[in-house]
Amino acid sequence: MNSQFSQHSISQIHFIIKKKMMASTAVSFSSHRPTPAYTMNYPKPNPTNPISLPNSQANRAASDSDPPKFKGSPQLNRWSRARAIRSGRKLERQGQRSQVVEMNPRVQPKESVSSPPTPAAGAPGNEDGEVTTGKSIYMVSDGTGWTVEHAVNAALGQFEHCLVDRGCPVNTHLFSGIDDVERLMEIVKQAAKEGAMLVYTLADPSMAESARQACKLWGIPSTDVLGPITEAVASHLGVSPSGLPRGAPGRKFPLSEEYFKRIEAIEFTIKQDDGALPQNLHKAEIVLAGVSRTGKTPLSIYLSQKGYKVANVPIVIGVELPDTLFEVEPEKVFGLTINPVVLHTIRKARAKSLGFCEEIRSNYSEMDHVRAELEFAGKIFAQNPAWPVIEVTGKAIEETAAVVLRLYHDRKHKCSMPRISKRY
Amino acid sequence: MNSQFSQHSISQIHFIIKKKMMASTAVSFSSHRPTPAYTMNYPKPNPTNPISLPNSQANRAASDSDPPKFKGSPQLNRWSRARAIRSGRKLERQGQRSQVVEMNPRVQPKESVSSPPTPAAGAPGNEDGEVTTGKSIYMVSDGTGWTVEHAVNAALGQFEHCLVDRGCPVNTHLFSGIDDVERLMEIVKQAAKEGAMLVYTLADPSMAESARQACKLWGIPSTDVLGPITEAVASHLGVSPSGLPRGAPGRKFPLSEEYFKRIEAIEFTIKQDDGALPQNLHKAEIVLAGVSRTGKTPLSIYLSQKGYKVANVPIVIGVELPDTLFEVEPEKVFGLTINPVVLHTIRKARAKSLGFCEEIRSNYSEMDHVRAELEFAGKIFAQNPAWPVIEVTGKAIEETAAVVLRLYHDRKHKCSMPRISKRY
Repeated sequence: MNSQFSQHSISQIHFIIKKKMMASTAVSFSSHRPTPAYTMNYPKPNPTNPISLPNSQANRAASDSDPPKFKGSPQLNRWSRARAIRSGRKLERQGQRSQVVEMNPRVQPKESVSSPPTPAAGAPGNEDGEVTTGKSIYMVSDGTGWTVEHAVNAALGQFEHCLVDRGCPVNTHLFSGIDDVERLMEIVKQAAKEGAMLVYTLADPSMAESARQACKLWGIPSTDVLGPITEAVASHLGVSPSGLPRGAPGRKFPLSEEYFKRIEAIEFTIKQDDGALPQNLHKAEIVLAGVSRTGKTPLSIYLSQKGYKVANVPIVIGVELPDTLFEVEPEKVFGLTINPVVLHTIRKARAKSLGFCEEIRSNYSEMDHVRAELEFAGKIFAQNPAWPVIEVTGKAIEETAAVVLRLYHDRKHKCSMPRISKRY
Repeated sequence: MNSQFSQHSISQIHFIIKKKMMASTAVSFSSHRPTPAYTMNYPKPNPTNPISLPNSQANRAASDSDPPKFKGSPQLNRWSRARAIRSGRKLERQGQRSQVVEMNPRVQPKESVSSPPTPAAGAPGNEDGEVTTGKSIYMVSDGTGWTVEHAVNAALGQFEHCLVDRGCPVNTHLFSGIDDVERLMEIVKQAAKEGAMLVYTLADPSMAESARQACKLWGIPSTDVLGPITEAVASHLGVSPSGLPRGAPGRKFPLSEEYFKRIEAIEFTIKQDDGALPQNLHKAEIVLAGVSRTGKTPLSIYLSQKGYKVANVPIVIGVELPDTLFEVEPEKVFGLTINPVVLHTIRKARAKSLGFCEEIRSNYSEMDHVRAELEFAGKIFAQNPAWPVIEVTGKAIEETAAVVLRLYHDRKHKCSMPRISKRY
């Protein structure tokens, strides 16, 4: 059994997986699986074999035929129970939720994962210069990897309470453009060594199946991000997916209308930044107005990436606003405001980093001036009640962008149920 | 039964769901489910009841106690089989895969979904001005909605072969910031009326459960994007997720180091665009060099959004390149090149849209000039062999960005297994 997992047997594993897939086309695959994953024979740890499982956990997993007890905080157990109820799964049989989440049969230690016990001088984990404290998440994609990265970031947002104080440090590692099974298996093996979990987006069903099976064999928790959605869309449309990664040759239509629209929007937005070319405001789809450091520029750029032509107009005490701002359709103008205390903090940091002289600094970042400028902006907004005013305090760029676009589409389409619609 | 689904019973449904969740804390939830979803009692269609299911499909679903046969192309069936094998699921019992994908029990018609049969003048579907040809996908999020949008876009990438010629037109509708169950239920009802599928990211387990159950009751295919990943991360870290949406008050840390780094990167990149301020090239983390229309600007902006300070330097025949380009570390310089025929096409379109005069136009977009300029760039690249040269023909901005970042991190960290690592 052990030799099957050596460095040179990757194509062999793929062959076995392919054979299994073929053999089970007509019958249920589950007959090939000797009940839950954790009763499978793991490769016995071997300090000279670079792919053997790290330290004594593997021994325990291999010798222990009882399913390991689910460990975690009482809070985690409560939450897991809620999820279990939600998914209609029996609480007593955690090991069976193998469709989406492959539970790691090894008991995860609370402390940092130690470096691989193997004397593998050439192992990437040692060469990277990356400190391996904390749990690792491997993200594998056959394309850009942005989808899997986005999904993992969003999921990690659910653990901010323990990530910010580094109570549970996490390292993510993105492997993009993985389109052959050999490289995939190298990564899975490395994940096993590092005790990482694997999250993947692989369009080719046989690649995805290889990832799933290898993770199961090596006891790596894994999640397929796009499989379930793609499957649901396929049934919904009654059309089969291509099974080809996005970047596959002959698949892209980069000279499409949307591609050009997006580039045009980005170029327009850069040119219009910070009140430049006010005569062009009527050409913008969205106009942002606000005092300095309300995030107009990054917000404009973010929106332009989504294909919207954005102009932004700074509001500064003593500087007259361009007439064109009041001539354009008020439906496309958005005011940005922010808490004065927070703005004061941001401006002080900004003034310091830009090395402003004393006079400019006091005008720009003194609390009285900050308050006065926000009041000045507030009066302009009050005089233009058709402009929605968005409070940006504590919002990430993406969050403000979501509010702007929701309002923009809502007002444009005048629908009773605000939505951003697109046609494909 | 019917009255339970009327306009005014949303809170009632939520109450029922909550009660069910509480009741089943200790026992398996599956005991509450009378076997597969499609044998449940659907609300009987009623043309005067705005929430009844559309047209005769509902009748069929309600009266037919046999599970409907899976319909689709032979290709779809093959693909479904591969997926089924992969997930270890029995092929004969499609209805049981209820954890992630709720199969729509209604047979989906190949032709366009007709508008709701109800005389609901106030129904959003009618007010939008949106043409409802094609299948709809509803994307629901308690946050910005960018994660669910990203995931659905990526999944739709698997159907490009039928989307581009509008063989199977699809409309997506994004509902962001949905943080109360009343609005959630309105959307689910509208999805039922429109025959849409629902893809959601809801951090609060009880909201996600409400979505799942309501979709099941009304026969809407649905997918939970983040649930499986969050669950896997929770077990991996041994920490419970917060269950709070990202934008929830008191959750964000927008004044974090990363936030400022990103804004600084965006502002730097805008200032450096198109060869401006060559004296600052040493401050950039990534420098892009290429002839006009190789996508330097949108690529720079995209990378800056990810927190990298980018400068781009245009290569133009007869214009000397700044000395600083050859003085900075060659590890951070990337050359961009493109197929001359494609570049010629792009430049012709560009010259036309900018209204170039005849002389500039011929210099800019004539085929001979395009070839000569690309050769000129090629020579510069050859003289600087440490710069990787990336072929951008047929690549989307995101794809080129993925290649640049893979190489950038690879060279910076000199790891044997190229990866982009981040610490949280």
